[in-house]
Amino acid sequence: MKIAIVTYDDFTDIDVFFMWDLLNRPRVADWSVRIVGEAEWHRSRSGLPIPMHGRIEEANEADVVLFTSGPGARRKAVEPAYLNRFRLDTDRQMVGSICSGALILAALGLLKGKRATTYPTSVKQLREFGVDVVEKPFVAEGNVATAAGCLASQYLCGWIIERHLGASIRDLVIKSVQPVGEGMSFADLPAIQALYAPIEALSAK
Amino acid sequence: MKIAIVTYDDFTDIDVFFMWDLLNRPRVADWSVRIVGEAEWHRSRSGLPIPMHGRIEEANEADVVLFTSGPGARRKAVEPAYLNRFRLDTDRQMVGSICSGALILAALGLLKGKRATTYPTSVKQLREFGVDVVEKPFVAEGNVATAAGCLASQYLCGWIIERHLGASIRDLVIKSVQPVGEGMSFADLPAIQALYAPIEALSAK
Repeated sequence: MKIAIVTYDDFTDIDVFFMWDLLNRPRVADWSVRIVGEAEWHRSRSGLPIPMHGRIEEANEADVVLFTSGPGARRKAVEPAYLNRFRLDTDRQMVGSICSGALILAALGLLKGKRATTYPTSVKQLREFGVDVVEKPFVAEGNVATAAGCLASQYLCGWIIERHLGASIRDLVIKSVQPVGEGMSFADLPAIQALYAPIEALSAK
Repeated sequence: MKIAIVTYDDFTDIDVFFMWDLLNRPRVADWSVRIVGEAEWHRSRSGLPIPMHGRIEEANEADVVLFTSGPGARRKAVEPAYLNRFRLDTDRQMVGSICSGALILAALGLLKGKRATTYPTSVKQLREFGVDVVEKPFVAEGNVATAAGCLASQYLCGWIIERHLGASIRDLVIKSVQPVGEGMSFADLPAIQALYAPIEALSAK
C-alpha cells in the first residue's frame, strides 16, 4: 500500500501535515506514506521548508494519490508541463484532494461530469473547469474524492483508511485526534494504546 | 509579539504543525512564530525531519511559549538538565501545552495547585505530578493553559490570538480551517479573503 502526498512550494501547512499525521497512524505492514514534489525541498505557505521523500512521478505508481493545497496548487493547475508528468488511472488508484488541490484534479481531467468540493477561495476557478462544485466537506465519486476546509482532511484520510483497513481502524484513527471530551475521552485509553501497539494487534480488514 | 513553539525529537506531527499553521494565519505586524528545539533539526514521531528556527532558550524571552507533545515530551519531562534551561515567568508570559506537553509544564512547576488536561496516555503521569487532571479539551488558569486531543490546538491558539488580537480575528482564524459546510461556507469568502489581506485590513484590537 503506497500513498503519495503531492506537494508544491507555498503549500498550506496544515493540509500536508494533517494528512501525513493521520495516514501514519495505522501501524500496519506494507503501509507507506511519502510526501513527493518536484524538488528535494518545498517551502510551506508559512515558510517552513520540508524535505520530500521522492519525486512526483512516484504518484503514477502509488495506490493512493493526494493533492495538497495552497497558492502552489493554484499555480500548478495551470502549468501544462507539470500536469503532463502525471499518468494517473482511477481504475487502479484512489485519487483525492484537499481544498485547492481539487483544481489539479480538474486540470488532470479527473473531475469531468463529477461533483466536487474545494476551499471558498477556489470555488470560482473550479467551476471554470466545468466541475459541479458543491458545498460539502467531502465528496467521493468512485475512486476520486475531494475534501474542503483543512479539518476535512479527516474525511479524506478516513475514506482511504476505511477502504484499506476497515471502518474500525478508521474510527480509531479519527478518534485519536479529537479534543478530549469532544470525541475522545480518558476512558478511550485502551483503544488508543491498541492503535499504537504492534502491527499484530490491529485487526486489519 | 514573539511566540515560541517548543519541540523535541519524536514530536507528534499534527501538534506542532497545526499550532504553527493557525498562529501564522493572522498577518499582523510584529507577530513572530518560531519553532525552537535543542538541535538544528528535530524528527517527528512519523519520521519527518524539520529545521528549527532557534534554540529553546528563546522561550525564556518570548511572550508566548507552547510545549508540543509526543514521546519526546514524556522523556523531556523527566530530564533535569533540559528543564533547567527554562526560566519562564507566567506573570509576563502566556505558557501553554498540547496533549503530553502538559507533563513539561508540570515538571517546570507551572501547574502546582492548578487544573489541567492532557492526552489519555499521559493522564496517570500528570496526576503523579500532583496536578488536578480534568477531562476537558482546554483548561486556562490565568496565563497557563493546557489543551488535549490534537484538534484542541484550536482552543489553545484561539486563547492566544484572542488575547493579543481580539475575538473577531480569533473567530476568523478558527473558521478558516473548518470543514466546508461544517463551520465554514462558500459565503465566507470575503471574510477569508480579509484574513489573507494585507495587515492594514485587519482590525486588530
